[in-house]
Amino acid sequence: MSPAPRVSRRRLLGYVGSTGVGAAAGAGAVLAVGAEEAPPASSAAAAVGAPGRTIEPWGAHQPGVATAQTEVTELVALDLRADVDREALGRLMRLWTGDIEALTAGRGAPGDPAPWLSQPASDLTITVGVGPDACRPGLFGAGPDGFAAVPPMSRDRLQERWSGGDLLVVVAGRDGTTVAHAVRRLVADAAPFARARWRQAGSWNPTGPDGRPQTGRNLFGQVDGSGNPQPGSPLFDSTVWVREGRWAGGSTLVVRRIRMDLDTWDELTRDEQERSVGRALADGAPLTGGMEIDELDLSARSQGRLVVPVDAHARRAHPSLNGGRRMFRKGANYTREVETEQGVEVESGLVFLAYQADLLDQFVPVQRMLDESDQLNEWTTAIGSATFAVLPGFEQGSWLGEQLLA
Amino acid sequence: MSPAPRVSRRRLLGYVGSTGVGAAAGAGAVLAVGAEEAPPASSAAAAVGAPGRTIEPWGAHQPGVATAQTEVTELVALDLRADVDREALGRLMRLWTGDIEALTAGRGAPGDPAPWLSQPASDLTITVGVGPDACRPGLFGAGPDGFAAVPPMSRDRLQERWSGGDLLVVVAGRDGTTVAHAVRRLVADAAPFARARWRQAGSWNPTGPDGRPQTGRNLFGQVDGSGNPQPGSPLFDSTVWVREGRWAGGSTLVVRRIRMDLDTWDELTRDEQERSVGRALADGAPLTGGMEIDELDLSARSQGRLVVPVDAHARRAHPSLNGGRRMFRKGANYTREVETEQGVEVESGLVFLAYQADLLDQFVPVQRMLDESDQLNEWTTAIGSATFAVLPGFEQGSWLGEQLLA
Repeated sequence: MSPAPRVSRRRLLGYVGSTGVGAAAGAGAVLAVGAEEAPPASSAAAAVGAPGRTIEPWGAHQPGVATAQTEVTELVALDLRADVDREALGRLMRLWTGDIEALTAGRGAPGDPAPWLSQPASDLTITVGVGPDACRPGLFGAGPDGFAAVPPMSRDRLQERWSGGDLLVVVAGRDGTTVAHAVRRLVADAAPFARARWRQAGSWNPTGPDGRPQTGRNLFGQVDGSGNPQPGSPLFDSTVWVREGRWAGGSTLVVRRIRMDLDTWDELTRDEQERSVGRALADGAPLTGGMEIDELDLSARSQGRLVVPVDAHARRAHPSLNGGRRMFRKGANYTREVETEQGVEVESGLVFLAYQADLLDQFVPVQRMLDESDQLNEWTTAIGSATFAVLPGFEQGSWLGEQLLA
Repeated sequence: MSPAPRVSRRRLLGYVGSTGVGAAAGAGAVLAVGAEEAPPASSAAAAVGAPGRTIEPWGAHQPGVATAQTEVTELVALDLRADVDREALGRLMRLWTGDIEALTAGRGAPGDPAPWLSQPASDLTITVGVGPDACRPGLFGAGPDGFAAVPPMSRDRLQERWSGGDLLVVVAGRDGTTVAHAVRRLVADAAPFARARWRQAGSWNPTGPDGRPQTGRNLFGQVDGSGNPQPGSPLFDSTVWVREGRWAGGSTLVVRRIRMDLDTWDELTRDEQERSVGRALADGAPLTGGMEIDELDLSARSQGRLVVPVDAHARRAHPSLNGGRRMFRKGANYTREVETEQGVEVESGLVFLAYQADLLDQFVPVQRMLDESDQLNEWTTAIGSATFAVLPGFEQGSWLGEQLLA
């Protein structure tokens, strides 16, 4: 099941063709509010910025899954209060549906004490997921096929602090103030039903120096998100969306908090850094040549040596070594202050998001391959892990999760 | 002393006329890199964003003081190591000068292991200041007239954690990844000389739904920055810049971390909220009418009652009640997780920045007025305070602080 996205073509700024995460256009209707009113760029008083997009929340899928990366992403996992039942969940989902419709349109949420912090054209999306423990009789019922927690991986160093959760909201947008306001409203409205368990926030740079979308980079400096299936393509649809059953139109999401050791990474030569991934640092192109969008040649050799090493990240994760399995990946770079006896230090890393239709069949085998061998493991450590079943989308007049709870 | 800013007119996108902070254009040369190469907006593959600006670091003033607010601001205060002398300070300032020139141009810093995380057209500015303890013989020498720590205010609840510091870098830009990379390089290059003492980061939404600059709002929902002197105006120059002596072209900066109690604020009626400030929430206009840029009528009465209450923030801070004293204000909204026994809670507030030529003569008397009486005091608490003398600008071929250290 994957109906064509409903797009308002008159004001559409355009889907962008690229395999990069950052270039992915959404499944929702993407409107450029105010673009017609904007002055010509040559005007002395021209906008130095540009309006973002107002992304409609309705459709077969929650649009925030497929939309392009934005500058800011915040995630809040919540735990349900003990007395919440299916009926209460339905009330929360109807509340959140109203919030989502209002906030993404740039109106305040219903009863919002500070509606002016909402603004249209903020690239705002809100995506809701459900943790494994809430996928049980009396709550959401069984989750999608293959939905579970990620089994322990040998290299994981998970902290409870960044793991688990019964519900998740992912709020993405282009500025932290608008995003923080939306998060605050959603968490406040959920208070009778659920309490925040963890929060993660991160940044991305999805825009190139020419104003065009780009894939963006993690804090190692790597172009991160190359080779992603392109939203709107059949490959994307088969990779990401649950096709049948109660969860049709939904997905599953793995959130991994990956600490990155920038200091030891920085000690490597550029050649060592590039071989650990299998891609060029400058532009993300495969070491076997071409451009970022070109396919890796895993058999290529130079002077008898594999150009993409046997334990390079891009080889180990490659669909051809994983029975065609793949995910749709996004990320948000984080830095977090840690107070030590020596002063304030900073932990850096990536909030890694992987969307796939079947978590056990897609994410887990690939993650096992990487856990077994991946040069990047030397500089990266998963310190948090959580999984969520992404609710199917909802149509105008309906509400989030209705097909599961009504 | 206030030479005309050196602006590259050929590619200038334009100064924007408004009294709002968010609309302030900078004193540095503001270039729109890549604008000529950008496709027309009607192209199907058109940029959905727009290039930011590349802001040259040279001039009589550090440009980050006067430039418009950006989406992201990070501040790091550092403490000098015990063995740092004037000569070592000179080496650090030359190092930072090279970093600033490279990073703001979108090149990696010299020796940068991840230069690709720098990008032109990122609205990046880097501003350097010097704390009171570093303004002594053998280091920077005496600071500007009137430069000192802010004296204790009765309502302050200052935490050492967010106060003080020998050096400050303020890094502002439009995405957190580019900003974090610049911060990391500056702190890493300073490691032989200084150690991070505190870090603060916040967000702002400086762009309206039409893509035009706007003043922006704090987390109470108030338009924040109205009535600021307009960069480039004589009033701005006399308010902000040190005019004579060794620090000519510099300024002073007060950084206050202001915790805001959103929960009790949200309980007020809109009328109560508006009267506490003296401005309308919807658009920041004075309660006495007009638009945001219009002057408050402090004598206006309605049914015998002052329209702008006697203890409204905008009245207490108004130049006419403060002998004409004023500051140039900026801000960054923050949310910070606080782990409690009940779970993860969030503290919200504003990293408040006030620039003025003479700290004791401008900032302190106004702050005393507000400390004595200001309705907003009920929902705001200063939990951090630090002051810095902002170094004068530097010309190409020169270096930051040369006139003070050479």
